[in-house]
Amino acid sequence: MTRLLVSLLLTAGLGTAAYAADDQKLIEDANGFFDPIPTMVQAPENNAITREKVELGKMLYFDPRLSSSHLLSCNTCHNLGLAGTDLQPTSVGHGWQRGPRNAPTVLNSVFNIAQFWDGRAADLKAQAVGPMQAAVEMNSTPDEVVAVLNSMPEYKERFDVVFSGDEDPVTLDNVAKAIEAFEVTLVTPASRFDQFLDGNANALNDKEKHGLSLFMEKGCVSCHSGVNVGGQDYFPFGVVEKPGADILPPDDKGRFAVTHTATDEYVFRAGTLRNIALTAPYFHSGQVWSLRQAVQVMATAQLGTELTEDEVDSMVAFLHTLTGEQPQVDYPILPASTDETPRPVLTVPGQENN
Amino acid sequence: MTRLLVSLLLTAGLGTAAYAADDQKLIEDANGFFDPIPTMVQAPENNAITREKVELGKMLYFDPRLSSSHLLSCNTCHNLGLAGTDLQPTSVGHGWQRGPRNAPTVLNSVFNIAQFWDGRAADLKAQAVGPMQAAVEMNSTPDEVVAVLNSMPEYKERFDVVFSGDEDPVTLDNVAKAIEAFEVTLVTPASRFDQFLDGNANALNDKEKHGLSLFMEKGCVSCHSGVNVGGQDYFPFGVVEKPGADILPPDDKGRFAVTHTATDEYVFRAGTLRNIALTAPYFHSGQVWSLRQAVQVMATAQLGTELTEDEVDSMVAFLHTLTGEQPQVDYPILPASTDETPRPVLTVPGQENN
Repeated sequence: MTRLLVSLLLTAGLGTAAYAADDQKLIEDANGFFDPIPTMVQAPENNAITREKVELGKMLYFDPRLSSSHLLSCNTCHNLGLAGTDLQPTSVGHGWQRGPRNAPTVLNSVFNIAQFWDGRAADLKAQAVGPMQAAVEMNSTPDEVVAVLNSMPEYKERFDVVFSGDEDPVTLDNVAKAIEAFEVTLVTPASRFDQFLDGNANALNDKEKHGLSLFMEKGCVSCHSGVNVGGQDYFPFGVVEKPGADILPPDDKGRFAVTHTATDEYVFRAGTLRNIALTAPYFHSGQVWSLRQAVQVMATAQLGTELTEDEVDSMVAFLHTLTGEQPQVDYPILPASTDETPRPVLTVPGQENN
Repeated sequence: MTRLLVSLLLTAGLGTAAYAADDQKLIEDANGFFDPIPTMVQAPENNAITREKVELGKMLYFDPRLSSSHLLSCNTCHNLGLAGTDLQPTSVGHGWQRGPRNAPTVLNSVFNIAQFWDGRAADLKAQAVGPMQAAVEMNSTPDEVVAVLNSMPEYKERFDVVFSGDEDPVTLDNVAKAIEAFEVTLVTPASRFDQFLDGNANALNDKEKHGLSLFMEKGCVSCHSGVNVGGQDYFPFGVVEKPGADILPPDDKGRFAVTHTATDEYVFRAGTLRNIALTAPYFHSGQVWSLRQAVQVMATAQLGTELTEDEVDSMVAFLHTLTGEQPQVDYPILPASTDETPRPVLTVPGQENN
C-alpha cells in the first residue's frame, strides 16, 4: 500500500516535471485530445440561424406559458444564471414532481453527440420538445403549445417573419427550431483551458497543468475528450467497479432504454466537463455534490484506481479551468397574453391537491 | 331602460365632444388627478442607490437559492418578462402550494403607498423579506438565506463592497436593501398616457381620450389616481355592491388583518392600473381574466353604475395606454455554489410526497 502510493506519487511527480519543462509538449498533447470552443458555431442541419430566430427562441426558452401550469420554462431547469442547470439532484417539474435524472447543462450542448443522458434525442431540436410534453416536467401537449402561441399576436407576427416560407408558421417543429437556434448561441468560449489549447502556456498554473497531464495519463480522456471534454460518445458507468446504488440506481439502465441492446445497460453519454465546477451535483443521479468526490468516484468506477489527495487536488484544479465565459442575454420581454390565451392548469393527473 | 341608455350615451357623447374640442382641457384635468412616471426615481429613505447595490439586488432577485427548494426566486412570481407578475390567479410556491392572493406587479411598486394588497409592508425593503419566509412561497428563514449567501465568496465580496461601512455586511436587512435598490429601477415610463400628461395631445386617439374622460367623470379617479393610477391608498372593495364570493372571498378580510379595525374589513390597497393590460388576472383574488369584465365589476361594485358597451370599450382602450416601457435587464450570471452551500430542501412540512 505504501509502495503503491509512493509509486503513484513518483509517476505523478515525474509527469509534472516533464511537462513543466516542456509546456509546448503538454499543449500539443492536449490538442491531440481536445478542441477549443470555436468562435463560430456551425448552424445545425436544416435550421439556418438568423438574428430574429435566435430572439424568438430566447423568448420561447424563457416563456413559462409553454408549460401547462404557466410556471415552468426551459430556463427553470436550465437556468442561464446557474450555468444552464438547476443545481438539483434531479429536476423538479409539474406538481413539484421529481424527474428521474439530473438536468444536463444547456451550455455547449450543441457540441454533444446527441441530447439527454441516454442520447435519445438526436439534436437540440428534438430535445427541446421532450420536456414540454413530459408529465413530470412541463406537462403540455403540442396542441396546447401551439394554441398558447397563436393566442398572442406578437408571437404570431414573429413566427411569420422567422418562418416566412411556411404556410403555417406556428408549429411545434418551428418552436423547436427557434429554441435550437437560441441554444446554439449558448456556448462558453475563452476558458483558461481554451487559452492554453490555443498556445498560451501561462493560462494554466503548475498545479492545473499537473491536473491536465494526469487527466490524459490516467485515461480520463478515453471518455472525456473533444470540444466538450465529454459529451461526444456513450460509455458504461462502472466499467471497472459499479458505484453504489445511490449513484448508479439499478432501475435506470441508461441507453438500454433507447437501443434495447444488452451491452447498453448502464451506458450513458459521458457528461461534458465544460463548466463542471459550476454544475454540481454530479452524474445522472445527481447524488454527488463535491467535485473532489466526483473525481474519486470516476477513478475507482471507470479506471479502477485510487488517486492520491494531491492528484485529486490537481485534477480538480484543472477542471476549474474549464469554466468559460457565460453567455450574456437580455432578459426577454414576453408577448402579452390575451383573452384567448389558454388558462394555466396546475392539477396533477391522479392527485387532488389542487 | 331605453331612456337611461340614451341618457348615458348622450352624456358620454357630450363629454367626448367637449374634450375633443379642447384637448388642452383634458390634459389639464388629467394632470389634476395623475402624475407621469418620473424619469428620476427618488432613493428610498436610508437606502442610497448605487450601481453596485442595484446589480447585487438584481442577482438576489433572480437567485432561486434564496428559497429553501432553490427553485423559486422573486422573479418566479414577479416575472420581469411578464410585466412583473406570474399571470396566475394566486401565486404558486413551495411544494406547488397556492398562496392566498394574486401577485401584484413589482413594476412601479416604488410608487405605492405601501406593499402587499393589504399594505402590511411599509416599503419594498419590508416586502422583500416576506415571501422569502412564507411557508407557501419561498419557505426559507433569515438564517438560511444568510448561510446560502455566506457560502459563496462572490456574494460575500459584493456585500462587502456595497455595504462597506457595515461590520457584518451579509444580513437579511442588507439583502432587503439591495433588492429594494433593484426594484426601485423597475419603472415603466413613457407610456402613451404619460406622453399625453406631458402635453402631447396626439398620444391618445379619440376613443382613448373618451375613456380617460369617462375614467375621471364616472369617479374611477376616487381610488385610482396619482403616479400609479392606483396604489396610493386603501379602499373598501364593494362600496356600493359586494361582488360574488369568487371575486371577493369572504375569508379574506384584507386590511382588517393588519389594523384590526372593523371599518377595514374588505379594504384593500387600490391596485395600480399601470400596465394593467399586461397583468391579468385581476383583483386580489385573481378570478377575473378579462379587462372588460374587470372594468364592469368595478363599475357595479364601486360606482353602482352599469357602463354601456361603448363606455367599456373606451375605458379598456384608455387602460391600454397605461402600458409603459418595460425595464430591460441583463440576465444575471449568479455566483457559483460551493461545497458549503446548503442543499435544496423540497419537503413540505406535513406532507410526505418527497
